Amino acid sequence: MSEVELLRRDERDVAAWDLEVDVLVVGYGCAGVCAAIEAREAGASVLVLERSGGAGGTSINSGGFLYLGGGTILQKALGFDDSPENMFKYMMAACGPEPDEALIAPYCEGSVAHFEWILARGVPYKESFFAGAHEPFDSDDGLVYSGSEHVHPFSEIASPAPRGHAPQSIRDKGALFMNRLIAAAERVGVEPAFQSRCDALVTASDGRVVGAIAATLEGEQRIRARQGVILTAGGFIYNDSMLERYAPLLLQCKHKVGTETDDGLGIRLGLAVGGEAIRMEAGDVSMAIFPPNSLRHGIFINHAGQRFLNEDVYFGRAGEIILLHHGARAYLVVDDDYYGRPLNFPIEIAAVGDTIEELESELGLPTGVLQSTVSFYNEHAAKGEDPLFHKLPQYLTPITKAPFGALDLSSENLVYSAFTLGGLRIDANARVLSASGAPIPGLYAAGRTTSGIAKQGYSSGMSLGDGSFFGRIAGRHAASGS
Amino acid sequence: MSEVELLRRDERDVAAWDLEVDVLVVGYGCAGVCAAIEAREAGASVLVLERSGGAGGTSINSGGFLYLGGGTILQKALGFDDSPENMFKYMMAACGPEPDEALIAPYCEGSVAHFEWILARGVPYKESFFAGAHEPFDSDDGLVYSGSEHVHPFSEIASPAPRGHAPQSIRDKGALFMNRLIAAAERVGVEPAFQSRCDALVTASDGRVVGAIAATLEGEQRIRARQGVILTAGGFIYNDSMLERYAPLLLQCKHKVGTETDDGLGIRLGLAVGGEAIRMEAGDVSMAIFPPNSLRHGIFINHAGQRFLNEDVYFGRAGEIILLHHGARAYLVVDDDYYGRPLNFPIEIAAVGDTIEELESELGLPTGVLQSTVSFYNEHAAKGEDPLFHKLPQYLTPITKAPFGALDLSSENLVYSAFTLGGLRIDANARVLSASGAPIPGLYAAGRTTSGIAKQGYSSGMSLGDGSFFGRIAGRHAASGS
Repeated sequence: MSEVELLRRDERDVAAWDLEVDVLVVGYGCAGVCAAIEAREAGASVLVLERSGGAGGTSINSGGFLYLGGGTILQKALGFDDSPENMFKYMMAACGPEPDEALIAPYCEGSVAHFEWILARGVPYKESFFAGAHEPFDSDDGLVYSGSEHVHPFSEIASPAPRGHAPQSIRDKGALFMNRLIAAAERVGVEPAFQSRCDALVTASDGRVVGAIAATLEGEQRIRARQGVILTAGGFIYNDSMLERYAPLLLQCKHKVGTETDDGLGIRLGLAVGGEAIRMEAGDVSMAIFPPNSLRHGIFINHAGQRFLNEDVYFGRAGEIILLHHGARAYLVVDDDYYGRPLNFPIEIAAVGDTIEELESELGLPTGVLQSTVSFYNEHAAKGEDPLFHKLPQYLTPITKAPFGALDLSSENLVYSAFTLGGLRIDANARVLSASGAPIPGLYAAGRTTSGIAKQGYSSGMSLGDGSFFGRIAGRHAASGS
Repeated sequence: MSEVELLRRDERDVAAWDLEVDVLVVGYGCAGVCAAIEAREAGASVLVLERSGGAGGTSINSGGFLYLGGGTILQKALGFDDSPENMFKYMMAACGPEPDEALIAPYCEGSVAHFEWILARGVPYKESFFAGAHEPFDSDDGLVYSGSEHVHPFSEIASPAPRGHAPQSIRDKGALFMNRLIAAAERVGVEPAFQSRCDALVTASDGRVVGAIAATLEGEQRIRARQGVILTAGGFIYNDSMLERYAPLLLQCKHKVGTETDDGLGIRLGLAVGGEAIRMEAGDVSMAIFPPNSLRHGIFINHAGQRFLNEDVYFGRAGEIILLHHGARAYLVVDDDYYGRPLNFPIEIAAVGDTIEELESELGLPTGVLQSTVSFYNEHAAKGEDPLFHKLPQYLTPITKAPFGALDLSSENLVYSAFTLGGLRIDANARVLSASGAPIPGLYAAGRTTSGIAKQGYSSGMSLGDGSFFGRIAGRHAASGS
């Protein structure tokens, strides 16, 4: 018997049900807990199957950010102007190519209310703005630029607004975020079953998903889900075989952001009953060379000694561009004034030189290419200009103070962090769609089991963001059977 | 009822069969005709369903090339050394990332014998080598470099050998190729049913594919396929909605290489019964700016005025790199000595200048960037060197003769030709695989319904190549039920 059959069973072949609930949730990360809360609050009986021994999934170990905007109470309190339209403009420009407008539009529209819902479940946010670039590693500030909103080209497309909403904690922000939501779920009577894996979905003859087969500590359980099943079981960064087939470039990233249960099982369950998995090549690729921010005074060069990107971008954008477009080979060239080791990952020094010419030669570049790149950069940086890549003036200083260094940004020598962004296609009601665009009755999904708001061009907080947002929608719709 | 059910039916819901055959082939392009011949020659009764009114599919309008090597009778006759190992090295380097070794290895091993099989079915090849670069638009020569075997970096990875095998005809090579195969199929008793579309696959309770539902001129036909169904129904370049979901960059290509039936139906049928569709983002992207070959004396520059690729590569490699890695925006800078209009597609002149400085300014580039690029190129070209991108010496001439021109290679202004390369995952026996890697019993596929030998990095002839090669294998294995 092939795996096809293991992942899908015909209702006619299920002799009897061991258990019946209204809504069955598969996976207890941020999408699962939000789905469970909403379904329960709508009056449904809810069971959550979780493969591991405890709650939280990948979310509990994450940075805890929510990418939200449009004028949240926190944005307003800190004096930042934003609107759903403005947020939409940024996301449609950043989350491409061909970002999913059908998901992004309601996400932007509902963002303000969603933040209030999260607040009401007890997640605390400090009313303070982190003034450094991007993620606050040693701060409990509540709001931060967690993408590339304030830099080229996005700052010309939409009015910059910080949208990274960080729970109030210096460390373990993800745990704070998730533990409050898990507690909220318990308060409304959500029942999680741990060490319980969903092995198959059960379909009726009309294609409707009517239940699931689970491997539990009590053995196989045949669970009828009267209103629907919600798949919130993570992505597939821990499945190397799926990465080879779908997203081979991500195999170069040495740090997998996830848990071992991010093996794509949720996606495969959805596929087995006729769902579509789209943009399976996409991933978030972070190259955490910042902080220190001083390194942004340096310049990225590719293997031809050419500059290619404004160095003030979010490190996820830098990682993605270097991995996808430059063969995961690049350097960061800095002078002595701005040299520093990245705080979070070790880095190799590819070359050091007393002159740029010497650095160029050490890097094995043809004579003149790096000298030409640096001299063009310096000439304009001295005037506070970056005509090619438009880095912010605050990071534009000529590279003149010897010794000069080239930090090795190649994927062999630097740890890239990655998780997958491809997955099941859903509509704005979090219903899993088939190839025709018709929803599969009784099946919902959210979080990294889906291809969500970011098809590529990730900003921090988009995963907890769309997971929690569409998780809630899935819970509500499953409870009402709509 | 959702489309899931339309594409898959349970055998228990099929009241009776209208027709029974051993092997059912879906689609009558090069993969289908080869599958049908082999199945028939193995003694199976064969029915071919073809949606359009005639035979040939996309193959009949194609360039007619087969990408074959390893020491074919034609390669040997023309004095070219090649071996399966050498061909394998090239393909593993060119057809990536993570090319499918399980398909490429047998393809290289079986290439010599496959060419003899094609010859035996009456396709004529002239024993002559086309000395120009890449495809012979006005020649009936039999052998040509149809990829980037002879240029950097591939010429250093494997010993260069031409592998484009072209039928002997100046025009309509694809028609010559297909008509001989169709005639061969008729001789062995293959029955095609035209205007007949496969609307669903029928599965038994163990997941085996046991038949299909077809829409025909006589109405719906329920066809039992005792040994198996072979999906050879093309790719999805004519399905814009699937392109949006899976391969959005290909939407920028104005010329779709295919027929209207390349709408992905074959892929969706395979998915509906548990098959996997992989590398769905991949495509062949040709930017047919050559011939004239004189244009290769020019240099590609990107939107930052930087060179990025040796200009002697196969135009598919150029198109792919410009679309995927340079935002589909680039120019070809030429001087008066080598200026010429591409023969096959109209092109816009983005700028003309009496000096490179003037050209740079006309293109809106910051002062100095293009001058620096051209001066570095010229300095080395004068010595017959290209230290950055290693273009062949025969195309290395300094760009010095005014006026200078920049041809517009942007996807808005130049016609890029594209077809999809993603599709069902098969094994070396052409069996469609499920997510677990287990074959789906009774289901085979070949051609652009599958993700074949090229996941990206296409060379001309790889589609007729893997379509005909794995089509044959599918036919043999289906006939024997293995």
